Amino acid sequence: MFSFTVRGSDGAARLGELQTPHGVVQTPAFMPVGTQGAVKAMRHREVEDAGAEIILGNTYHLMLRPGDELIARRGGLHQFIGWRRPILTDSGGFQVYSLAARRTMTDEGADFQSHLDGTRYLLTPERATDIQARLGSDIAMVLDECIGFPAAREDVAIAMQRSARWAERCRRRLLDIRGGATADMTVTNAGQAQFGIVQGGMFQDLRDESAAATVAVGFEGYAIGGLSVGEPADQMYAVAGDTARRLPADRPRYLMGVGTPEDLVECVARGIDMFDCVLPTRNARNGQLFTSQGRINIKNAQYAEDDGPLDPQCGCYTCRHHSRAYLRHLYHAGEMSAGALNTLHNLTFYLDTMRRIRDAIAFRTFENFRQDFLRSVSRQHLDS
Amino acid sequence: MFSFTVRGSDGAARLGELQTPHGVVQTPAFMPVGTQGAVKAMRHREVEDAGAEIILGNTYHLMLRPGDELIARRGGLHQFIGWRRPILTDSGGFQVYSLAARRTMTDEGADFQSHLDGTRYLLTPERATDIQARLGSDIAMVLDECIGFPAAREDVAIAMQRSARWAERCRRRLLDIRGGATADMTVTNAGQAQFGIVQGGMFQDLRDESAAATVAVGFEGYAIGGLSVGEPADQMYAVAGDTARRLPADRPRYLMGVGTPEDLVECVARGIDMFDCVLPTRNARNGQLFTSQGRINIKNAQYAEDDGPLDPQCGCYTCRHHSRAYLRHLYHAGEMSAGALNTLHNLTFYLDTMRRIRDAIAFRTFENFRQDFLRSVSRQHLDS
Repeated sequence: MFSFTVRGSDGAARLGELQTPHGVVQTPAFMPVGTQGAVKAMRHREVEDAGAEIILGNTYHLMLRPGDELIARRGGLHQFIGWRRPILTDSGGFQVYSLAARRTMTDEGADFQSHLDGTRYLLTPERATDIQARLGSDIAMVLDECIGFPAAREDVAIAMQRSARWAERCRRRLLDIRGGATADMTVTNAGQAQFGIVQGGMFQDLRDESAAATVAVGFEGYAIGGLSVGEPADQMYAVAGDTARRLPADRPRYLMGVGTPEDLVECVARGIDMFDCVLPTRNARNGQLFTSQGRINIKNAQYAEDDGPLDPQCGCYTCRHHSRAYLRHLYHAGEMSAGALNTLHNLTFYLDTMRRIRDAIAFRTFENFRQDFLRSVSRQHLDS
Repeated sequence: MFSFTVRGSDGAARLGELQTPHGVVQTPAFMPVGTQGAVKAMRHREVEDAGAEIILGNTYHLMLRPGDELIARRGGLHQFIGWRRPILTDSGGFQVYSLAARRTMTDEGADFQSHLDGTRYLLTPERATDIQARLGSDIAMVLDECIGFPAAREDVAIAMQRSARWAERCRRRLLDIRGGATADMTVTNAGQAQFGIVQGGMFQDLRDESAAATVAVGFEGYAIGGLSVGEPADQMYAVAGDTARRLPADRPRYLMGVGTPEDLVECVARGIDMFDCVLPTRNARNGQLFTSQGRINIKNAQYAEDDGPLDPQCGCYTCRHHSRAYLRHLYHAGEMSAGALNTLHNLTFYLDTMRRIRDAIAFRTFENFRQDFLRSVSRQHLDS
């Protein structure tokens, strides 16, 4: 029920198609983040209208509230939230890593305290796999151990090797589930795929070792984790590109938690097929907007009497109906509509960018597109 | 450019049509409240889809932020906020009354301090008229002095008589504006109508005196103010009904700040044509939902695993796509989507109720409708 087809390429950039139990996703794809089962401030139909074919849900948040067993009783995450298209769930590893003082990592798994009520949980590779099987996402992720930047080589190596062992355990558990060895557990998506995650920080030899170990386990797709954690953009591009080359050409490659519009274009150029990031949604709620002419901070006084649209080249609802002056007013007045109209625009900008990327690969004009895009988007940060 | 036509009636209930510079409004009508130029949590298109033909804007909030002069420079409130249909603005009188300790009333006007930054303002009848002329609403309201409940007869009489003097000053000012005596002022809607407001608390003889004085000034429509301030529902219905009878049959009658779904039906039965209230929008954000079977508090544990729609008889986006279990989850997770999906439903319920009221008057079955409606809506408060 899950498959990936590369339909074309231009340099290292690939045009592809993911088949999932809930429909097709054109790649390169950007996945809006719907942490708690909703893309913040959006109706599902608005997310679809913006061009999203797949969204991401966070296992950590959903296991705590409303709970994976409750969601399984509702028929799975799709049914529970009323989203009919594909969903990818992360494993909870990154959120647990973010808890810092509230977690302890051992070979067994991650012992952590809920940020909601302090309840202790042990998230093992097996449990992360079970939870995602209950959620019934179309793509599940293995549990991995994340590490910050900068980090000592030895620490990175230890975390990477543990992640590799956990990847094996996650895969074994999923194969058990598929084989019916867990008949007492409610599995809500029999066609769920599972992606491995390559770690190794900024050390390319550790990345190579991690890629080899992860590929040896064998997954439907491969992610690159542990990037966009504070390193310079050039270093991120280099590691992403060098790591992508170590991954099988017939499997999708997912760069986790990345990034700016420029990052998307640069990493597609290096062979990445899938992205997720909170940047378009979170920045929108803070009044930071991405446009074809650079970034805008709608809070600024210069927009108080600006009757023009956010982005004259954008066809989204916000740009078709509202002025910068109105959006600035809504922001300063503390209206929920501010976050919503801004999110609608930023998501449209991101998803339009992905569409343009796919078109450029299809027409084999990606390098021209990339140069034009970087020039226009970076030309001016309108406010600075 | 403004007119009102009564197209039918059933008992005291009237079916009518308001013509305004921005289009037609079918009455009886409910006006969603868009205090700061946006119905909270909604896109304009969602407000339209729910069936709203007119919204309300608050003069007090808009004069403070972003300011009526800025809005006039944008071409008026319609242009500024991107809403093409009719708008009614209140005069600011009720909000100033709500400021309590921060305001002083004199015959000249209301002296108050902004809740935003403490700046002092003097809101006179003339200034309230000017501000609304700059905003360019389709229906402007006169400045009145509100009074709480219960209140001594003498206090009510003094405030009512002051309101009558202010009504005259507001009308004189609007006629000056229409006559071109204020050429230095930007007027953004030449066809703006103005409604007088009847006060007089719960004393019907004072209400009668107020109605006579206000009608003597002569307005395009008449509002009943100072109700729904804490009095029992039966008393409110009685005063609204007795006052409505004192108003000209060929002018629209607007009951300000009312009310529950039951209030709408009961007051249409007593000759009211227009309503506004924050109840559907504010309650939605607090998880309180109006349905065809009574009220629901979506926070309650009983909905945690309820896969049914909020209201099986409702065709709104929320009821078509989402379960009570999901809406409860969004509320407890603090997602903005909770307030938005709930508001969409409550507004649809209110506007559907108005449509059903109009149909019942047209078919002269209003009394049957009223009894059925009150029985089903009040039958059970589902949570209690």
